[in-house]
Amino acid sequence: MKKFMNSVDDILDESLRGFVLAHEDLVVLHTGPTYVSRLGAPARGKVALVSGGGSGHEPLHAGFVGYGMLDAACPGQVFTSPTPGQMLEAAQAVDGGSGVLFIVKNFAGDVMNFEMAAEMYASEQATILVNDDVATDDESLRRGVAGTLVVEKIVGGAAQAGASLAECHALGVQVNQRTRSMGVALTSCTVPAVGKPTFDIGEDEMEMGVGIHGEKGRRREKLAPADDIARQMVAAIIEDLKPASGGQALLLVNGFGGTPLMELTLMYDAARRSLGGTGVEVVRSLVGNYVTSLDMAGCSFTLSLLDDEMLRYWDAPVHTPALRWGR
Amino acid sequence: MKKFMNSVDDILDESLRGFVLAHEDLVVLHTGPTYVSRLGAPARGKVALVSGGGSGHEPLHAGFVGYGMLDAACPGQVFTSPTPGQMLEAAQAVDGGSGVLFIVKNFAGDVMNFEMAAEMYASEQATILVNDDVATDDESLRRGVAGTLVVEKIVGGAAQAGASLAECHALGVQVNQRTRSMGVALTSCTVPAVGKPTFDIGEDEMEMGVGIHGEKGRRREKLAPADDIARQMVAAIIEDLKPASGGQALLLVNGFGGTPLMELTLMYDAARRSLGGTGVEVVRSLVGNYVTSLDMAGCSFTLSLLDDEMLRYWDAPVHTPALRWGR
Repeated sequence: MKKFMNSVDDILDESLRGFVLAHEDLVVLHTGPTYVSRLGAPARGKVALVSGGGSGHEPLHAGFVGYGMLDAACPGQVFTSPTPGQMLEAAQAVDGGSGVLFIVKNFAGDVMNFEMAAEMYASEQATILVNDDVATDDESLRRGVAGTLVVEKIVGGAAQAGASLAECHALGVQVNQRTRSMGVALTSCTVPAVGKPTFDIGEDEMEMGVGIHGEKGRRREKLAPADDIARQMVAAIIEDLKPASGGQALLLVNGFGGTPLMELTLMYDAARRSLGGTGVEVVRSLVGNYVTSLDMAGCSFTLSLLDDEMLRYWDAPVHTPALRWGR
Repeated sequence: MKKFMNSVDDILDESLRGFVLAHEDLVVLHTGPTYVSRLGAPARGKVALVSGGGSGHEPLHAGFVGYGMLDAACPGQVFTSPTPGQMLEAAQAVDGGSGVLFIVKNFAGDVMNFEMAAEMYASEQATILVNDDVATDDESLRRGVAGTLVVEKIVGGAAQAGASLAECHALGVQVNQRTRSMGVALTSCTVPAVGKPTFDIGEDEMEMGVGIHGEKGRRREKLAPADDIARQMVAAIIEDLKPASGGQALLLVNGFGGTPLMELTLMYDAARRSLGGTGVEVVRSLVGNYVTSLDMAGCSFTLSLLDDEMLRYWDAPVHTPALRWGR
């Protein structure tokens, strides 16, 4: 295992400390329990957005804390759910009196712990479950992956504009329903505490439909040209999403941590060509490492069919460590 | 070699096409010869900044084209200098009547070709040579690495604010003199046309002082804890930069493409601790993959001692694919 680290036990603390130190104009680190909150939180009169999940997916979620997006993020250990205690403390700290909206990726541990936190939370709250990964056929098992970023940005825009908790919740549910993702891995990730790759994969193989923790995908295949990979991923998304012709979409090409930008923009080009003839019109784009899997080489495509209101909230100013525009 | 690609010959064209397609609100792609220009260029009355170099370092340079930074970037093939023809065409296209400033990394091919372009250029022009890498003792051989970003941002801010060609040139020369970088690799990169890693490196080794093309560093060493690596890199920079006590600095922790953000923020934390006692006060930070080496795992530290004017230009609005704030 080759990683920049001092000891396996200190990775999370040290990387979080560095993250917050590098962005101290935007976020604050709390310990005992651990969470990251927006500088100046709570924002009075604004619905507070709280997310979180296992670490190893940086910049998700703490990188999206700030103006126009999340109010707090609760990082668990690597690929491990945060505790209800973290979520509860974070919610209490950032609640500005208009309620708390939990945004939760559909993984058993996250769902269970956020449910527990929501039950224990004394004030107004609601939860959005994100499950955009089409790699799994069984919808109840669908994982929340890179589409989470889209939900967090659009609902964050609405909350910043003064939408109520019920409005933010309804909007988030809708965005999730209009969002699908599909990923592929060229290499495994290596969990620091394990010290060896999560799965073995040959020099001429790829894992199609991989999850963001290196979960098994749809099938192991021979490594294919970029265009073939893009076609497969776009087809899986389109089959499931069934977009009406003329639909406006956001296309996110997301890297898993070990794949450089040059390959991601090449995959973006391939995705755009694969979308020709589907009737989908790409009107917004994002390319980069946003929802990662430690050092895994690979990428995912996310397609979100957005109406005009959603596009407005996507475009709305955001000022976070990992997404920043319009302000 | 595991890369997202269709064929080695098409990598650059396809990744550039995808890059520009994803950022068509900011940049325009020209072919025959190839360069990327700022949408709406030339900007009348503004000094035009033109940079470029081999590809494989994305987002450098094309990712820094836009408001408040570069007016054009000339990408060569992977790790190969662009031609004088590309530079000349780009310069002519973006010259707004106030002259062209070439920003050149100190590599023999880049220097030679930019010199040729400058000689052939009929209008007012000047060149800034960036050579921030302290890994090489011989100053004439010092490579231009991640510090190039700092020069491009600060001079870009000055040009946007209306500084003259002579002022932009003098400022860039000063910023370069106040900027030092040092890098370390955990793995080699793989050049697509070669198909195998540039260098062999053991599972327990690192290459201290590596260049951004996988050039040999100061020495091959046993892989060390993050704090030891950070101490070595900071020491190399400080020895060379000899900062006065109380100096204000920008600290950039830059990933080489294959290292995830979690490790980069951990290294940022280590760098900050290593800077304790040097008298340098870190007042600005940037952490991420900005000047990469294809898929190489590793990172570099860049320290820039900035005066108040330079800090103002660093903070000035920038609106490019890879750096965006304040607007």
